Amino acid sequence: MNKHYGTNKIKIINDPVYGFINIPSELHLDLIQHPYFQRMRRLKQLGLSYYVYPGATHTRFDHVLGAMHLMNIALRELERKGQKITKDEKDAVLIAILLHDIGHGPLSHSLEGSFIIGKNHEELSLFFMEQLNKEFEGKLSLGIKIFRNEYKKQFLHDLVSSQLDMDRLDYLKRDSFYTGVTEGGIGSDRIIKMLRVVNDELAVEEKGIYSVEQFIVARRIMYWQVYLHKTVIASEIMMKKAIQKAKIESKKNGVYATPALAYFFNTEEKLNKSDIIDNFTLEAFAKLDDSDIIVSMKEWMNHSDKVLSVISKSLINRDLFRVEIARERFNLEKIKNLQEKVSDKYKINDEDVKYLVFSDKIKSKAYSTDNDTGINILHKSGKMSDIAKASDLDNITALSKTVEKYFLCYPKDI
Amino acid sequence: MNKHYGTNKIKIINDPVYGFINIPSELHLDLIQHPYFQRMRRLKQLGLSYYVYPGATHTRFDHVLGAMHLMNIALRELERKGQKITKDEKDAVLIAILLHDIGHGPLSHSLEGSFIIGKNHEELSLFFMEQLNKEFEGKLSLGIKIFRNEYKKQFLHDLVSSQLDMDRLDYLKRDSFYTGVTEGGIGSDRIIKMLRVVNDELAVEEKGIYSVEQFIVARRIMYWQVYLHKTVIASEIMMKKAIQKAKIESKKNGVYATPALAYFFNTEEKLNKSDIIDNFTLEAFAKLDDSDIIVSMKEWMNHSDKVLSVISKSLINRDLFRVEIARERFNLEKIKNLQEKVSDKYKINDEDVKYLVFSDKIKSKAYSTDNDTGINILHKSGKMSDIAKASDLDNITALSKTVEKYFLCYPKDI
Amino acid sequence: MNKHYGTNKIKIINDPVYGFINIPSELHLDLIQHPYFQRMRRLKQLGLSYYVYPGATHTRFDHVLGAMHLMNIALRELERKGQKITKDEKDAVLIAILLHDIGHGPLSHSLEGSFIIGKNHEELSLFFMEQLNKEFEGKLSLGIKIFRNEYKKQFLHDLVSSQLDMDRLDYLKRDSFYTGVTEGGIGSDRIIKMLRVVNDELAVEEKGIYSVEQFIVARRIMYWQVYLHKTVIASEIMMKKAIQKAKIESKKNGVYATPALAYFFNTEEKLNKSDIIDNFTLEAFAKLDDSDIIVSMKEWMNHSDKVLSVISKSLINRDLFRVEIARERFNLEKIKNLQEKVSDKYKINDEDVKYLVFSDKIKSKAYSTDNDTGINILHKSGKMSDIAKASDLDNITALSKTVEKYFLCYPKDI
Amino acid sequence: MNKHYGTNKIKIINDPVYGFINIPSELHLDLIQHPYFQRMRRLKQLGLSYYVYPGATHTRFDHVLGAMHLMNIALRELERKGQKITKDEKDAVLIAILLHDIGHGPLSHSLEGSFIIGKNHEELSLFFMEQLNKEFEGKLSLGIKIFRNEYKKQFLHDLVSSQLDMDRLDYLKRDSFYTGVTEGGIGSDRIIKMLRVVNDELAVEEKGIYSVEQFIVARRIMYWQVYLHKTVIASEIMMKKAIQKAKIESKKNGVYATPALAYFFNTEEKLNKSDIIDNFTLEAFAKLDDSDIIVSMKEWMNHSDKVLSVISKSLINRDLFRVEIARERFNLEKIKNLQEKVSDKYKINDEDVKYLVFSDKIKSKAYSTDNDTGINILHKSGKMSDIAKASDLDNITALSKTVEKYFLCYPKDI
Repeated sequence: MNKHYGTNKIKIINDPVYGFINIPSELHLDLIQHPYFQRMRRLKQLGLSYYVYPGATHTRFDHVLGAMHLMNIALRELERKGQKITKDEKDAVLIAILLHDIGHGPLSHSLEGSFIIGKNHEELSLFFMEQLNKEFEGKLSLGIKIFRNEYKKQFLHDLVSSQLDMDRLDYLKRDSFYTGVTEGGIGSDRIIKMLRVVNDELAVEEKGIYSVEQFIVARRIMYWQVYLHKTVIASEIMMKKAIQKAKIESKKNGVYATPALAYFFNTEEKLNKSDIIDNFTLEAFAKLDDSDIIVSMKEWMNHSDKVLSVISKSLINRDLFRVEIARERFNLEKIKNLQEKVSDKYKINDEDVKYLVFSDKIKSKAYSTDNDTGINILHKSGKMSDIAKASDLDNITALSKTVEKYFLCYPKDI
Repeated sequence: MNKHYGTNKIKIINDPVYGFINIPSELHLDLIQHPYFQRMRRLKQLGLSYYVYPGATHTRFDHVLGAMHLMNIALRELERKGQKITKDEKDAVLIAILLHDIGHGPLSHSLEGSFIIGKNHEELSLFFMEQLNKEFEGKLSLGIKIFRNEYKKQFLHDLVSSQLDMDRLDYLKRDSFYTGVTEGGIGSDRIIKMLRVVNDELAVEEKGIYSVEQFIVARRIMYWQVYLHKTVIASEIMMKKAIQKAKIESKKNGVYATPALAYFFNTEEKLNKSDIIDNFTLEAFAKLDDSDIIVSMKEWMNHSDKVLSVISKSLINRDLFRVEIARERFNLEKIKNLQEKVSDKYKINDEDVKYLVFSDKIKSKAYSTDNDTGINILHKSGKMSDIAKASDLDNITALSKTVEKYFLCYPKDI
Repeated sequence: MNKHYGTNKIKIINDPVYGFINIPSELHLDLIQHPYFQRMRRLKQLGLSYYVYPGATHTRFDHVLGAMHLMNIALRELERKGQKITKDEKDAVLIAILLHDIGHGPLSHSLEGSFIIGKNHEELSLFFMEQLNKEFEGKLSLGIKIFRNEYKKQFLHDLVSSQLDMDRLDYLKRDSFYTGVTEGGIGSDRIIKMLRVVNDELAVEEKGIYSVEQFIVARRIMYWQVYLHKTVIASEIMMKKAIQKAKIESKKNGVYATPALAYFFNTEEKLNKSDIIDNFTLEAFAKLDDSDIIVSMKEWMNHSDKVLSVISKSLINRDLFRVEIARERFNLEKIKNLQEKVSDKYKINDEDVKYLVFSDKIKSKAYSTDNDTGINILHKSGKMSDIAKASDLDNITALSKTVEKYFLCYPKDI
Repeated sequence: MNKHYGTNKIKIINDPVYGFINIPSELHLDLIQHPYFQRMRRLKQLGLSYYVYPGATHTRFDHVLGAMHLMNIALRELERKGQKITKDEKDAVLIAILLHDIGHGPLSHSLEGSFIIGKNHEELSLFFMEQLNKEFEGKLSLGIKIFRNEYKKQFLHDLVSSQLDMDRLDYLKRDSFYTGVTEGGIGSDRIIKMLRVVNDELAVEEKGIYSVEQFIVARRIMYWQVYLHKTVIASEIMMKKAIQKAKIESKKNGVYATPALAYFFNTEEKLNKSDIIDNFTLEAFAKLDDSDIIVSMKEWMNHSDKVLSVISKSLINRDLFRVEIARERFNLEKIKNLQEKVSDKYKINDEDVKYLVFSDKIKSKAYSTDNDTGINILHKSGKMSDIAKASDLDNITALSKTVEKYFLCYPKDI
């Protein structure tokens, strides 16, 4: 962060995607400087994707600042078009976007649910927000309300979380930038210029249809080319399996874990029983980041448990398992056959072999029509319609279909 | 052009899109230095699109050099994958791409057919190629054969002209760059890396499906956002109508024309009677460029013919007609009503009013399945299929539908 | 230009360099739509530089819009730092930057002074401004005052015209973008973020020293690599000599000229006698653009005057003269020897040979310390000093030295 | 990494800076896949610079691949100009550049010498290279010879390590890209196009002078704006002091350390006595990366040693010390005064206070003339000279002066 003029407070941040990002106010700056927030500097935005796209080492921290920047621009544009938004509402929606990802754990989505089972990152974000709201003496209340979609002006929530929110606009642009998958880039500027609010809902002017279409297709590309790239998926599932096995070993023979990780290994059962996350757990979670996983896994390379050491070596040295991908479910015979070979070779039992030979399906939806918040198109006539209807072709509908693929993963040396 | 080392011949060209472009050989350099080729420096690639996108002043010259650059990379990639291509074939296909647009007239597509009626720019390109081949003592013969698709190795022609040729890869990337419509940019690098030749046909490896989809959608965006932008279309048709009216006036009361343009006004009837273009006409056409139209039109602003002066003023001062666009054909009543008003206001007759109030349809196809040369996808299994079938959704089929829109154009002041 | 929402007036323009440019108000939009202003669309920003950098076909129009965009950002930044600027002042300084280049003639600097002798483009810009001010009923008065540096707040003039004005910030960035000379790019964003006003003068905060140094070096690169590239210089002087010769021929044997150009050939003597430019002449000048030169020169290729035809062919076909460049003045003997050879070969007299064999010097200063308006650095202590003193090394002083080079130009075929 | 065609081996890597990087051969691929090499994925290229430039999370791994890519291009260019380079030499110089940074420890330069005292990263790189050479059965011998500058063809070493080597060309371009300090970007393409070999030495063609000047100035900007940014420097020295204190504590009261770090805490004395690094130590060093420092420091936040906990909290939560910077050495009185205050406030002794209040100097040289390997300029005459003499101004000499600044660092709350 860069102090740019002689105040005590840092106000402008250099960002390779947008050039410069202005922090809107001291309150937002204070939030950014909070240790909970700074932890996001230690969480890679794309988990293990840098195993396929080495440039993709950017963090959650970068992303939320970028999303805040786009929010700022969007608010200015909407005001320029005559939309009334109060100072409090602006502050609040900027808070909501800043904090929307604060509940993420290490390596992002791949390990979601591995530490605090049954809670996704959005629920955890809310726990963090509530805790921060206490520290900030209620100043985050409206932001939390908007995040929860409990505030009357629906479009404010839409800007934070919908099919065309500032979150997506930033992450598509940013992930495209850092991976080098340039064709996944989107015209976020143009889309924001075309936003409108109609009856408190967010809409895109009719002439923005092509940009929205491109946004949906770019998202689809990023899904298959990056987020669901077979090597990424395989690495992330291997990582998840390593954690599972390490947990079991921690109960049986003991396993090395960094202090932050050990906490979750040791309290797992207790955590699973409770609906509520106490402050102690929240604080522990706030200690946990990517580095804990890396350090622990480096030790697991030499663990006596074959499965744990094989997966850990494979991941740390990026000597990954083979991955096959197919439109149809893999033949059970084939899987069984592979499992037998691996079982033989590694001298492991039937239970353990499932950690090394596994198959599952992945699916993606670039655009979803079946929930309430589609992308509204505002026609010149004043009429509103969903993009899937407004587009002069059927491809939006086509894109909205869930696509499923199957993958099969096993050690290379068989 | 930049001489970069101590030879007499220029070999490297700076290009803002790709950085540097190497001229492959002295033969190609000699071609580029020919006056016919240099004329392309005076032809804007996108006609009047710079009226909407002021940055889009790039030329045919830039584009063909860019396409040659991509061709060079594509040939190298195909060779790296084991495809045999002889030195002569490489030289020839590079010649073909260099010359594929040499028959373009002023302001590109908008005035196509206005000077030599009944010949499109590809036919004119061939006349130029044949003439150059004489001057170059037959060295272009194989290139011309490939251009005409008369050479046995189909994929060489495909690289010059097909649904996924180097022409399109360059112009989408370049037009996106100069217009600033960044979301129209494509992953030309990635697509080229995934090209393959199977049974002498060009194909894209299966994992390239998403890039090809994005290419088709980007093309669709560029069509509607740029090439068929209503203001661009209106300006170009106004330009065409001005030329038509000027031709008529040249026979009636006389009209100013630059020497190059005057030649075509004076020989029009003769030209239309003949199937063949004689050297004299070819040479005359080689004199004609964007500047002739601009200079002539500046004079027409003061011509006594109302229609001619109104259109010319409107274009030169970019005080353009109003354009309406619709999915359905415009109501004849509405058009007639407008024509009456214009007729009254400008005091012109029923014939002339059609130059000032006009409606037509525009259509675009981002991908076409009904001709022989679809985009082949090479599956891991070795099977080939068309992208429209290979894609896991229907949107390619959707994109292949012809989309039609109607526009209506008339002076602003009524 | 792009209408982006349902008003009659165009408000947002796509620009490949900055993404989007907002037109600040209706007054500025009206100015931009004036025919005088639209003429800048037909003036290439970099004259004949596209002969070396084919991408550099951008126009004065693009540049002034870009400079206005940076001005807008600079004003916002200064206000954010507490500088008071009234609405009228803002409008005025935006007008001043919009119109600062409106007096440019065809092919920019290369032909400056060829048509209205003794008037540079800044003086002509003022004539245009005064004329426009009449049409706009005095609304441009404050802008003109700022342009003339007659307004009390010096920094407003500095933003329009000084060592670090919005003009230079835009043209360096833009010319670097379009030529592909990326290392000539500057951190205009960062520099603008560091601007301050102290005692009504413009200054840069101390921490901006490195960016200012880089700006000066980038400018130096652009000078030698682009603006004073030997091929560019030679082409532009050839162009100037062609115009000179054509003027002489127009008096002797007659010469083709487009109507706009003919006006200046025919009235030359009258124009030179007068200090004032009458409306008639201004209007004539407003008709003249790049296309007049191109069209006329295409005809001159066949003129009976050897010199005129040789130069014109050379330029139109880009078969340029040879250029030598040196640190010292060329040996007179060498020049004389070349002139004799050319005289022999082309059978022309001693007077004419000077058009074909010529030598001159070029010079550039990246930063000038000898006038009043250096670049002020505002130190943390509150002290101000010139960048040449503030920089911790002597290179700024070094850069401020005038560098001179000599070139020698003659036909290739001797 | 991305498999792009149906071979077993990965050959093409996506890179956001260059688009695609081709791995030249299987040998190079095998090297890249070695665990020692993969470790560089876990070493940030710019240490703690991401505390100022959040985007700068790129790794050593990215950088060495980029440098290899530029090497590949440079070799091709030199061959195109007639320079003979054998296949073995090409393979070897590509090996040398791939491995030149393999000896870096955690957080790059900031902690250099903290773990294996008295060995810089180049010496450690050599140890790694020798070890790898055994594993690769001598195939790296020529590469090591070139790296050590013991091979007859000097220019091969120059390409790996000199004032204008592929290392610097990549890191300036890459660091500029990821920090967003765009004005630090360089024309690496243009510089490489202008490389020549004269008498086995690397030189730049005369016309490349401006690009080389810009390269030197860009380097200067990156030094002061990024590498020596006061906040970066302060963070890195704080980090170094934390490690020092932790080492002391590990002997006194014990301190948490990850296994990889603990090894170096426990064997420090032994390591310092030996000149040679045994395999065991090398293997241990190969386990150590950024994550060990982060995890350990997170624990130190709660350590009973005040100094250790204060610094660790400050770093982990990015609540950094205040930094002052000056041209002159700070007044001893001022420092002493600060130390007393801190001593009082934190209740620590005189020895410990030096960890919290410290001053030192930083210096940078953008270009150095006093060693053998300046940047050679090849004049058109065939003469060679150093850039500092060839440049038409004195600024290169100016830039070659060592610039020194002083900084003073202390806790914010006093």
